[in-house]
Amino acid sequence: MKKSFFAVGLAMTLATGAAMAQVKPEILVKQRQAVMTLQGKYFGPLGAMAQGKAPYNAQIVQRNAGFLDNLSRMPWDGFDPSTKGEKSHALPAVFNDDAKFKEAASRLQNETAKLYQVSRGGDEAAVKAQIGAVGKACGGYHENFRQKQ
Amino acid sequence: MKKSFFAVGLAMTLATGAAMAQVKPEILVKQRQAVMTLQGKYFGPLGAMAQGKAPYNAQIVQRNAGFLDNLSRMPWDGFDPSTKGEKSHALPAVFNDDAKFKEAASRLQNETAKLYQVSRGGDEAAVKAQIGAVGKACGGYHENFRQKQ
Repeated sequence: MKKSFFAVGLAMTLATGAAMAQVKPEILVKQRQAVMTLQGKYFGPLGAMAQGKAPYNAQIVQRNAGFLDNLSRMPWDGFDPSTKGEKSHALPAVFNDDAKFKEAASRLQNETAKLYQVSRGGDEAAVKAQIGAVGKACGGYHENFRQKQ
Repeated sequence: MKKSFFAVGLAMTLATGAAMAQVKPEILVKQRQAVMTLQGKYFGPLGAMAQGKAPYNAQIVQRNAGFLDNLSRMPWDGFDPSTKGEKSHALPAVFNDDAKFKEAASRLQNETAKLYQVSRGGDEAAVKAQIGAVGKACGGYHENFRQKQ
């Protein structure tokens, strides 16, 4: 099922193509940035738990992992070519290196889906390892596609 | 199960209370506004379908309903008393009429959870009716807790 979520996401993007074309570029940017804001909200506490900076709370991990699983499927249609000229932190590679961008997007979705699954089990060490894998996928994505902050 | 999601949300809010206290008020506002941005993104097309302004697409309805079910559980901890003085569209009633606010929040979550369930069935008329119910819950919430736009 490696690419299933992304494949579905792509099919959706194609299916909603006509509708998307009507959404203003600045709105698309606002929407995709909203996703990142919420990814930060729900990943932050997990990162802190994985690093031992906050006490481990399995209930919060499960909830946040479910939210993150959904959020990881939301931003991609916001990177429409119409947004190229909009002010944002997106690097040109987002639009110029489609294959690599889709690979990074797919990786984030797969790692997040896996975190959701692992969080349903009771293996704290496995959950923490998978939180690390999601963090790495975020980092790899930012490294290649987002301006340094 | 009428209040189950909200009850869980409340328990989470209490559990994360210590962590929340460290999040700056302006970040809390940004996070809750991000949720509304995405609720608009994913509810908009459903509203159009329910009103016959866009062709009905069961696959998109299911996806969006799943996203909305998650999103409807995200904003509430952002309405922390520390955000009272922040610039936003929130009316004082958010902080002054806690029981009514929680009731409206709970209603939105319940109607959205129901939409998610109904969207899994094949009854287009029932789905459209439930999209209307979610829209009404949004509207009721805005009427009482958000400044007129």
